[in-house]
Amino acid sequence: MKRQVGELKGMVSAICRAGGIPSADAEMIADVLVTTDMRGIHSHGVVRLARYLDCIRAGGIKPAAEPVILSESANSIMASADGGLGIPASMKIMRRLLDKAENSAISIATLNHSDHYGAAGQYAMMAAERGFVGLSMSNTCPLVAPTGGRAAAIGNNPFAYAAPGKKHRAVLFDVCMSKVAAGKIEIARGAGKKIPTGWIITKDGKDTDDPEDYWRGAVMLPFAEHKGYGFATLVETMTGALAMSGMMSGVHSWNMQPGRDADTGHCFIVINPTFFGGQDAFKERIDAMIDELKRCPTVDGVEEVLYPGELEWRREASAIADGVELPAASEKELARAAQMTGVHMA
Amino acid sequence: MKRQVGELKGMVSAICRAGGIPSADAEMIADVLVTTDMRGIHSHGVVRLARYLDCIRAGGIKPAAEPVILSESANSIMASADGGLGIPASMKIMRRLLDKAENSAISIATLNHSDHYGAAGQYAMMAAERGFVGLSMSNTCPLVAPTGGRAAAIGNNPFAYAAPGKKHRAVLFDVCMSKVAAGKIEIARGAGKKIPTGWIITKDGKDTDDPEDYWRGAVMLPFAEHKGYGFATLVETMTGALAMSGMMSGVHSWNMQPGRDADTGHCFIVINPTFFGGQDAFKERIDAMIDELKRCPTVDGVEEVLYPGELEWRREASAIADGVELPAASEKELARAAQMTGVHMA
Repeated sequence: MKRQVGELKGMVSAICRAGGIPSADAEMIADVLVTTDMRGIHSHGVVRLARYLDCIRAGGIKPAAEPVILSESANSIMASADGGLGIPASMKIMRRLLDKAENSAISIATLNHSDHYGAAGQYAMMAAERGFVGLSMSNTCPLVAPTGGRAAAIGNNPFAYAAPGKKHRAVLFDVCMSKVAAGKIEIARGAGKKIPTGWIITKDGKDTDDPEDYWRGAVMLPFAEHKGYGFATLVETMTGALAMSGMMSGVHSWNMQPGRDADTGHCFIVINPTFFGGQDAFKERIDAMIDELKRCPTVDGVEEVLYPGELEWRREASAIADGVELPAASEKELARAAQMTGVHMA
Repeated sequence: MKRQVGELKGMVSAICRAGGIPSADAEMIADVLVTTDMRGIHSHGVVRLARYLDCIRAGGIKPAAEPVILSESANSIMASADGGLGIPASMKIMRRLLDKAENSAISIATLNHSDHYGAAGQYAMMAAERGFVGLSMSNTCPLVAPTGGRAAAIGNNPFAYAAPGKKHRAVLFDVCMSKVAAGKIEIARGAGKKIPTGWIITKDGKDTDDPEDYWRGAVMLPFAEHKGYGFATLVETMTGALAMSGMMSGVHSWNMQPGRDADTGHCFIVINPTFFGGQDAFKERIDAMIDELKRCPTVDGVEEVLYPGELEWRREASAIADGVELPAASEKELARAAQMTGVHMA
């Protein structure tokens, strides 16, 4: 069943309000989650809504918390989400940062004491839509084994960037640090299939091709070995150490411990091309980069080289035109959220 | 043969001066190249010196060029290396940027019309040594195939970051975007060994395990597929599009076309923890992150988890104590550089 975008946003927003989330914040959550589904990133879309409500019910998230500015300068913000929801806190701080970014070549905001903030790329795109380059990062509870290790020691810390074009909308790149998302392991298990070795490592430190091991304490491995590990430490440096948030084992799983303060940290960086030859020239150069990538000859069976974000823009356009088809897991979680809050679902 | 650090730096500096490079710049090049060898990154150490001289002789690099400030703000520099050597231009701009960084939460410099700047991490470490977080990036001529492509469309764009600790010196992470460095393909060829498929793709877009194919037009693949590709576009965005430097095919190979202006771009970002709880607190938190990584239990056969940079600090300490052992290729190129410039080599 395809759902119309406006209706889906209205439903998510109504559920949030019924769950005790202030109206403006509810709209931000609806906008971020539904837009993420529209772009085809269902793992970070409305499937998360019921779990946010679980955390609110269990006391791990304060639904009406407002971000607190801890310190501020001409081009920086250090803030706390005060134990509230990650999405509205991030959107509010990002808006404040984008105003500063008008007058500075580069600006930065950190946000501590937060929770899951949805898809990292959403905040990077807020910058790109204003003509800026945006970076967005978050730490998570420990989920990934460092190179040579066999325990989850560092988060699967998402990293995203976006840069606007003129003819092309924007480059948007959004990744986690594990070789594959946990969802892919779940899909293999569901299909009764083996997984390639190198995706996860058992708790005893052995290679495995059995997806079941993930539910027996196996741990995700970083992408490209030490490279994924190194990028995870970069994100932890910015979102944990710099933001003075929970760090490493100090970040708690919002999925596994909904009643506990997750103490997640985020970091946002915005670069203003006005200070480097102007926004117009910059956007044209992003177009030129994309055009050159699109001209690259392809391997057999691949029709065209895609630039980062291109697939997401196509899916979003199709969702605007024809509605968004949610996967079964998302529909199920949406229904659960509606039931939890007593909202009638269409 | 082990070479004492001071003697090796003196030799490199003397060769540079004899090659027409001003004395202060010669010392910067000696410092960056020899320090890189001391850290065990021989691919970016003195092995590059003779090739810089090749470019100077062929007219592709102006040995005495001074960087030109194109525009500047409280926390930003947009500069041109004016077709000069990448290392002294980068060091000069980085020093200027570090002075600005004292008074700003985050600062940025771009440098266009430059050439090879050595190991990216050297500039990130200049920031860490002042108590800051440093990022350093550069584009290169097209060397890597984008996901789905079979031609070199984007550079093997290095990305580095460093963050200082108190008890531990610093985290230092420095990577390129290809699955493996070209040097590893060369080593496999020399040893008559096959390489794993996925390292390179033939010019016809086929998988191959034959290292010889690299010299028949095969192209390097990005690490972790679309992830390495996406990080390459991030670096190109900052060093090509933003810096208004050569971009994509507009960057020329300094190795293959020594007589041609490479038009390489770099970008440096510095974050000052003084604006986020103070340098002391930050350094202690970096120590805590490292300590937690070091406590991670290991897989069989691995003695300890290393943090990014740890191996480099051990090698550097050993080089200071006992001298640095250059690989044969580096000794050969050093001898060639000495011969080109008429410098007597010890």
